[in-house]
Amino acid sequence: MAGRDSRRRARSRGRGLGACQEGVGLRRIHGRAAGLAHDQLRLSQRPPYVAVHVPDSPVPRRVVGGRSSSPRGGFACFCGGCDARHGGVYSSSLVLLTVGTGTYARDPSSSQVQGGRTTDKERARVRLRIPALFVAIALVGSALVAGVVVWSSPTGAQGDNEPATEACDASTAERLDLYAERINKNRIGYGLEPGKPTVPGPTIEMTEGDCLAIKLHNATTKKVSLHTHGVDYTTRSDGTSLNRSCVRPGRSRTYVWQAHLGSMRDDNSVEPGSAGYWHYHDHCRGGAHGTGGIYRGLFGGLIVRAPDDPVPDVEPCVLVMIGTTFNFKRGPKTPLCQANLGQRAEFVVITHGDLFHTFHLHGHRWADTRSGSLEAMDDPSRVIDNKTTGPADSFGFQVIAGERVGPGAWMYHCHVQNHSDLGMAGIFLVRNADGSMPPGAQQALDKFKRHDH
Amino acid sequence: MAGRDSRRRARSRGRGLGACQEGVGLRRIHGRAAGLAHDQLRLSQRPPYVAVHVPDSPVPRRVVGGRSSSPRGGFACFCGGCDARHGGVYSSSLVLLTVGTGTYARDPSSSQVQGGRTTDKERARVRLRIPALFVAIALVGSALVAGVVVWSSPTGAQGDNEPATEACDASTAERLDLYAERINKNRIGYGLEPGKPTVPGPTIEMTEGDCLAIKLHNATTKKVSLHTHGVDYTTRSDGTSLNRSCVRPGRSRTYVWQAHLGSMRDDNSVEPGSAGYWHYHDHCRGGAHGTGGIYRGLFGGLIVRAPDDPVPDVEPCVLVMIGTTFNFKRGPKTPLCQANLGQRAEFVVITHGDLFHTFHLHGHRWADTRSGSLEAMDDPSRVIDNKTTGPADSFGFQVIAGERVGPGAWMYHCHVQNHSDLGMAGIFLVRNADGSMPPGAQQALDKFKRHDH
Amino acid sequence: MAGRDSRRRARSRGRGLGACQEGVGLRRIHGRAAGLAHDQLRLSQRPPYVAVHVPDSPVPRRVVGGRSSSPRGGFACFCGGCDARHGGVYSSSLVLLTVGTGTYARDPSSSQVQGGRTTDKERARVRLRIPALFVAIALVGSALVAGVVVWSSPTGAQGDNEPATEACDASTAERLDLYAERINKNRIGYGLEPGKPTVPGPTIEMTEGDCLAIKLHNATTKKVSLHTHGVDYTTRSDGTSLNRSCVRPGRSRTYVWQAHLGSMRDDNSVEPGSAGYWHYHDHCRGGAHGTGGIYRGLFGGLIVRAPDDPVPDVEPCVLVMIGTTFNFKRGPKTPLCQANLGQRAEFVVITHGDLFHTFHLHGHRWADTRSGSLEAMDDPSRVIDNKTTGPADSFGFQVIAGERVGPGAWMYHCHVQNHSDLGMAGIFLVRNADGSMPPGAQQALDKFKRHDH
Ligand SMILES: [Cu+2]
Ligand SMILES: [Cu+2]
Ligand SMILES: [Cu+2]
Repeated sequence: MAGRDSRRRARSRGRGLGACQEGVGLRRIHGRAAGLAHDQLRLSQRPPYVAVHVPDSPVPRRVVGGRSSSPRGGFACFCGGCDARHGGVYSSSLVLLTVGTGTYARDPSSSQVQGGRTTDKERARVRLRIPALFVAIALVGSALVAGVVVWSSPTGAQGDNEPATEACDASTAERLDLYAERINKNRIGYGLEPGKPTVPGPTIEMTEGDCLAIKLHNATTKKVSLHTHGVDYTTRSDGTSLNRSCVRPGRSRTYVWQAHLGSMRDDNSVEPGSAGYWHYHDHCRGGAHGTGGIYRGLFGGLIVRAPDDPVPDVEPCVLVMIGTTFNFKRGPKTPLCQANLGQRAEFVVITHGDLFHTFHLHGHRWADTRSGSLEAMDDPSRVIDNKTTGPADSFGFQVIAGERVGPGAWMYHCHVQNHSDLGMAGIFLVRNADGSMPPGAQQALDKFKRHDH
Repeated sequence: MAGRDSRRRARSRGRGLGACQEGVGLRRIHGRAAGLAHDQLRLSQRPPYVAVHVPDSPVPRRVVGGRSSSPRGGFACFCGGCDARHGGVYSSSLVLLTVGTGTYARDPSSSQVQGGRTTDKERARVRLRIPALFVAIALVGSALVAGVVVWSSPTGAQGDNEPATEACDASTAERLDLYAERINKNRIGYGLEPGKPTVPGPTIEMTEGDCLAIKLHNATTKKVSLHTHGVDYTTRSDGTSLNRSCVRPGRSRTYVWQAHLGSMRDDNSVEPGSAGYWHYHDHCRGGAHGTGGIYRGLFGGLIVRAPDDPVPDVEPCVLVMIGTTFNFKRGPKTPLCQANLGQRAEFVVITHGDLFHTFHLHGHRWADTRSGSLEAMDDPSRVIDNKTTGPADSFGFQVIAGERVGPGAWMYHCHVQNHSDLGMAGIFLVRNADGSMPPGAQQALDKFKRHDH
Repeated sequence: MAGRDSRRRARSRGRGLGACQEGVGLRRIHGRAAGLAHDQLRLSQRPPYVAVHVPDSPVPRRVVGGRSSSPRGGFACFCGGCDARHGGVYSSSLVLLTVGTGTYARDPSSSQVQGGRTTDKERARVRLRIPALFVAIALVGSALVAGVVVWSSPTGAQGDNEPATEACDASTAERLDLYAERINKNRIGYGLEPGKPTVPGPTIEMTEGDCLAIKLHNATTKKVSLHTHGVDYTTRSDGTSLNRSCVRPGRSRTYVWQAHLGSMRDDNSVEPGSAGYWHYHDHCRGGAHGTGGIYRGLFGGLIVRAPDDPVPDVEPCVLVMIGTTFNFKRGPKTPLCQANLGQRAEFVVITHGDLFHTFHLHGHRWADTRSGSLEAMDDPSRVIDNKTTGPADSFGFQVIAGERVGPGAWMYHCHVQNHSDLGMAGIFLVRNADGSMPPGAQQALDKFKRHDH
């Protein structure tokens, strides 16, 4: 358990700053706008980022070294809903992002670390230390929260004669508004506020155990929807015309997603948790499969973390391979992913449309697993730096920027030769540890910028 | 070991009903014919299903939780070949299917369960409880069965100067007849009886340890064959013109397949067992690679189970992605896969031809593993709901129908947008637990039927 | 731990023969030339093979059965650099190959085995037994070796303000010369000597812990480079025009690659070792992504082994799927892969260009893992005989030739039907254990040769 414990300790912890003060437990980030022209903003290189707060969980999901472990002493309460039911103890782990600079905002209290090193660069994901004593109370409290029929039983055997509702209790869920809106003649995007659609849409982060209710406002002239991969949703939140869950122009509809913890079923088979690198997209515009919406830009990344998953030090870089572009951009206009040497960077790669691609990153590798990492020294999974991917596939991984290879301008590109030659390539800039430019990197960036496709 | 034991107990067990009484240890199922027109039958939405009986095995292959285990007390004898060699104890685990209704027939004795719950809905896969005492006898008996040279040594070092025979002893194998026959101008199918070819051909199920001899009768006007993936076969049963194992028109030929248990080799490397979601197809018609046979429909699913693999509660849904169709059908004529809420449903997805696809299922996920399930809570494998697949790939998985998401009409489709828009989509209908239609599902089915491609 | 120990013992070990005597720790093999015409040689069915010597490692990487283990008693010293720092004990494990015959040369001392069986067929990879006492000394010694700034810290945090150098110390690395040279109007190849380019280029083998410096001589009329996958290299050795690491005509440049051992990072996450089936290729000719170089033949295989990985009994068969060919050949001119019954054969499959393929091998299967093998009986990984692969993907696996299926002419082919019909197929000839031809195999080869595409 030493490995597990120190891994857990290696994360910075502290008291949440203002998550519950805000009353919604969620902060939307629009900082990217500063200094950018209108279309630049909305056809952003990288999408805005929004994180549902991250509760500690009574059921640990992943462990280092292949050993299972006992329940850990932590739980979450939802901001705006925390009271004596939960023992009067608040836990907050809101991720605060300053998107414009691509780094996490620092929590003043994050230096209050239980163990491991912490620096200014360290992630400010904050969590409250909760005595194990409160766990039982919390679990009882959780059960009391549920006031409506939800499809939460592991066997799905409950409520089968009830009208279909949602996968989790929308009345107490985290809430988010999303606006589908036209950007220009060719593009439509999802945005967190009216007038601010982007392509890709906002990157949404959940943690296993979260319930999220997203109200989609359709400000376009045709029906659109929100269909997601990976997490739980009933037919009501399917986002298909088949299940009558599209949104007509000028109307809105709330979609409810649940990210559940992994567990053992009654028959001792494993029910995987919802953790994964997923994505959401329209499934209504331009046909039964949302082809019209997808090709206009109605898609975005969804990251679901297991409670013990490491979090990146910098904003995830979301790359959508569609046509022969990343995020409808060809080099040199493709997203510039960035991290400082030694930081834990994160890539989310989504494919859409009709073509198959191979995603390649120079100088770095990842494991072909759920998390992109090996879980133990004897994990037999493939380690790769090139991955075949087809429409609606998504995967992601974290790398230690420049690990063993140093800083510099590292290319990412589709390795289908005619795709890369058309400009399906971009740069992962690994700066020096202090954030300064490494030798040769500026020249490489300049060279890349001159190389128009 | 508690997990493993209870998992094993969770399966219904009992005394076999008539498997050995029938004398062949195998029942062929043709029930699908009822009420269907001729071409409907043969270009069936879902293929017939045939199961080689499932012996208990002295060598356990998969365990829960990453721990290895000791040999378990069970073994099989082949029906029609059971005698004192095996200690006089019969073990039968024939799967009886009433294909027309899509549910397993119930074994009257299956209520005789060792542990765990059992209900009318529970699978009727029946096994005899065998005292561990008989295991040694059984192992000796197994060795005596082999009367001919077979390629059964783990290192393949035996008999290398003998004429090539078969991978296992065809003289004592389970036997099956298969008929290759024209259906209409465009289609040829394999069938279990003359006059009853289907596309896909019958789904064949084996368990590790089985030897199966299939006599293929060629009722077409060109040479055809039976080439399989995954299991063991010598060049005699390769089903290629290269190895002179095609069948000329009007002739027949017996192909012998072996499904072996996993084991450790002498050098302590692992020899994987044969378990997997495989498939078989023609390799002779229209060229050296059977392209003509494949495009006419000469293919089918092959499921090989490890002894401890969970079995589905309903007939597997076999979906062959070929051209821009499933089973040469476009929506709304694509297969309707069905299960009741909470039942363990099984999908087998095979690709053939020239195109690459991505298979997506709404509301459900699976693991990218051999079985489609995680083997332990710390299994790092990818959990997905969308998988890139190319010609002759095959994969499968089981889901708990509607788990956490409830019943309803859930779409499956290729996620290549122009493929789905052409109609490469179908429905996985999750009924209520009592088999009744959930709210909105009939409307969804009606809507889907009106949406002709 | 019994399984692990015996697995380790099952390898032949002994004192190296002449690796350090040669002074470079590396032998280049050019034996393939004998009896072949010029173009036949250079458009070889299978590439030459060169192995960096294989040091024992103080950090074991893979274990059988999912259990981690303690450091083992072994280490390596580099030939030409071995001295008292390392305790005065030499360890050598150079692979000697007689490429012309496709078998490893035997080490006279390889009968000096610690345990397990050994035969003439057994691999002659030789290692010295090192008392565990020397491990600590070796580790200290290793640190002293580093005389220049290298990017070797797990966190990459060191030296971030130093000018970028190389991933490991080129001054003490193993060295190799590679020559890029025109073969004919359409082809350019890499060769180990001037005048001997081949397509694919030489197969290079490294072991985790190796540092390799490759001096590329450009004897063509346009710039070319050496870009590799999987191993560590700084931007200096990126082999891209972006990072100004191309080689102009008539010039040379040294590229430095490091293969590192897996380890646990400070935060208890796993840093995977470099082991894998990788490849290298040009990234400069005909555009920013080397499309011109790749389509002319500038690519080759790179095998990196973990210290405990089993080694094949015969030369790896490297198959590059490009266009609708293997190694720019269509059947019957595709590579003839060969092994005797029971030998451990190895396949390396690389894809290049613009097309996606599915690689299928008859009669044999592998695991979709890093090594192609399951690591334990409960390893949940997929076992496959058909794999979807796209440009710049690479994978590999070992099979026991003819295991359970006997000898004969087994087809490998792309399973995209129009690709195989165009001739994208070849033969894996499994001879009898004594090397003689099995019944029917010659007829099959003859038949294949007559079947021109
Ligand atoms: Cu591409
Ligand atoms: Cu498709
Ligand atoms: Cu192909």
